[in-house]
Amino acid sequence: MTASSTTLPVQALRRFATDALAAKGMSAADAATVADVLLWADRRGVGTHGVARLAQYCGFVDKGELDPRAVPERVIDLPASARLDAHRAAGPVAMMAAVEVAMEKARVASVGMVLVSRTTHTGALGCYTQALARRGFAAVALCATNPFMLYHGAAAAGAGTNPISIAVPGGAADPMVFDMTTGATSMGNLAQARRSGQQLAPGLAADERGRPVTDPRLARLVLPLGGAKGSGLSLMIELLASHLSGEPILAEALERTPLGKTHRQNSLLLAIDCSRFVAPALLAQLGQRLAQDLHALPPAHDGQPIRLPGERGDAEAARRDHEGLAVPAVVMGELGALAASLGMTSASYWR
Amino acid sequence: MTASSTTLPVQALRRFATDALAAKGMSAADAATVADVLLWADRRGVGTHGVARLAQYCGFVDKGELDPRAVPERVIDLPASARLDAHRAAGPVAMMAAVEVAMEKARVASVGMVLVSRTTHTGALGCYTQALARRGFAAVALCATNPFMLYHGAAAAGAGTNPISIAVPGGAADPMVFDMTTGATSMGNLAQARRSGQQLAPGLAADERGRPVTDPRLARLVLPLGGAKGSGLSLMIELLASHLSGEPILAEALERTPLGKTHRQNSLLLAIDCSRFVAPALLAQLGQRLAQDLHALPPAHDGQPIRLPGERGDAEAARRDHEGLAVPAVVMGELGALAASLGMTSASYWR
Repeated sequence: MTASSTTLPVQALRRFATDALAAKGMSAADAATVADVLLWADRRGVGTHGVARLAQYCGFVDKGELDPRAVPERVIDLPASARLDAHRAAGPVAMMAAVEVAMEKARVASVGMVLVSRTTHTGALGCYTQALARRGFAAVALCATNPFMLYHGAAAAGAGTNPISIAVPGGAADPMVFDMTTGATSMGNLAQARRSGQQLAPGLAADERGRPVTDPRLARLVLPLGGAKGSGLSLMIELLASHLSGEPILAEALERTPLGKTHRQNSLLLAIDCSRFVAPALLAQLGQRLAQDLHALPPAHDGQPIRLPGERGDAEAARRDHEGLAVPAVVMGELGALAASLGMTSASYWR
Repeated sequence: MTASSTTLPVQALRRFATDALAAKGMSAADAATVADVLLWADRRGVGTHGVARLAQYCGFVDKGELDPRAVPERVIDLPASARLDAHRAAGPVAMMAAVEVAMEKARVASVGMVLVSRTTHTGALGCYTQALARRGFAAVALCATNPFMLYHGAAAAGAGTNPISIAVPGGAADPMVFDMTTGATSMGNLAQARRSGQQLAPGLAADERGRPVTDPRLARLVLPLGGAKGSGLSLMIELLASHLSGEPILAEALERTPLGKTHRQNSLLLAIDCSRFVAPALLAQLGQRLAQDLHALPPAHDGQPIRLPGERGDAEAARRDHEGLAVPAVVMGELGALAASLGMTSASYWR
């Protein structure tokens, strides 16, 4: 909305992203899946995980880190769980496949867990837990990433900003969707601050030797959320998502092995068939009742509403579906360059 | 070790706690289970969840909030999950029963989830995840509690300090055990500061109207870890552990219903049979390798070791098993008063 951004319809960006990914060799269905996940984030106000990632995803294809034609393979198949080897498929393709498998398992066994190994950038985790919760499943998603976070007590990177998302059917936002990084902030926010030159709040970032900084030009590492809590939780996500798959990310990166220098991620997705434990109508009623109770609390700041997980994103998405998405100039430039490299005419999409 | 504490053998405290709980009507086996969980925390340096809770637990019996004779009942029994109604049994009794059920399910289905509803104070969550990890299961435990924490954006209590624990076999501490509250600190730490009069660090606590305080006499509420992150994660734990059981804690408390004024907790325990996904020898090797990598990072403070989840607790427990437990004078007074009320001679245990 500022002079340095261009407002575009969501559908135009979705079509552009789909076509660009298809031009990189992805099937139409997979390209649409990735575009949907990117736009899911943009629409909800999480620009760090939206079309600003499109050029990066295409770069992963060029480097051979993302195989646009890979089909996630079910390498372990058990009564209540499975492991998918993504074979370097795009994260959203692998995760949407995992959503289907987790539901299939949970329908039979009440609980379904899917390990997803060897994906690329997973995208906004809340997209997958929300997809499950909308179909009646409570969901937990964990994602293990490369270490760009300080390990508490160390003067160097030793943890990923490994996110966690939880969604449960029913409530104010229906479903309530929670999504957080184990860092005090995200790498995407550091990158945005670097581009804009805006000072960082204290407690968010450190330089490459772990010294706290507020100058975004010096910021290299994210500080862990709450010190030992954030880096400990991040470590346990690596153990669950990566070690249970036999596919370590952190050890390879810290040892600077050839594999450790590549981009790859692992995830764990858990689905719980709520209807096996509580009547759906009661679950919805409990969520709505609690939302009312929390909204009725005295607000900390007059005029600022008390928000439940997912509420702000729902409101932002509704507004942007109507008004369009404000794409920062720097991202517009990246999309234009990407289009040129693919022989596409980006302007034809924005009309 | 200071003048205001008394050092006692772990076994003496365990015997005393067991006998006191048996005197309140608990079976010998259940009393020993609760005493073990309390001493597990004390031995690992988590005094807020140790014998300092014994008088409180006995008080719950007097108020009818803890039924010392209750037997947790399996009210839902599915291929990969179960729900235990604890019928107000002591938290450790219900949780140790849940550990057995989660293992039974995970052995068959690869994953086992147990909802535990209507327990009393759950104790240190890490005790249960460690018990599972020692037998080869990765474990996640969540616990929903009464709201003594600020909900981010509100000027009043609106969240529990709902803890989360994760343990995975293999590693430096074997198993690695992670345990955190979703608060910036715990209610137990606030109570300790109130007793000692020590000023609180900024960002930990608030008064009853949500205004940040450092004077422990004014501290009534815990601030959420990382603002919206801590209170959002806490809320999702209430949804998973309480709403899936149809047993809301937070809504009842916020509405000040008669039930909402009583003490009760709910938990969710997840066990994953690691051997179904990765060879145990490889899992152990991956954990040890990562522990070495993290220990080899440059330390933030010279001479301060870089610690992995569970390492400090393991070391503290080994030391205390050898040297005994330093029981603060105020806790010694409580134990003496409890003994007197039960017709026990506490001094005979300490000899």
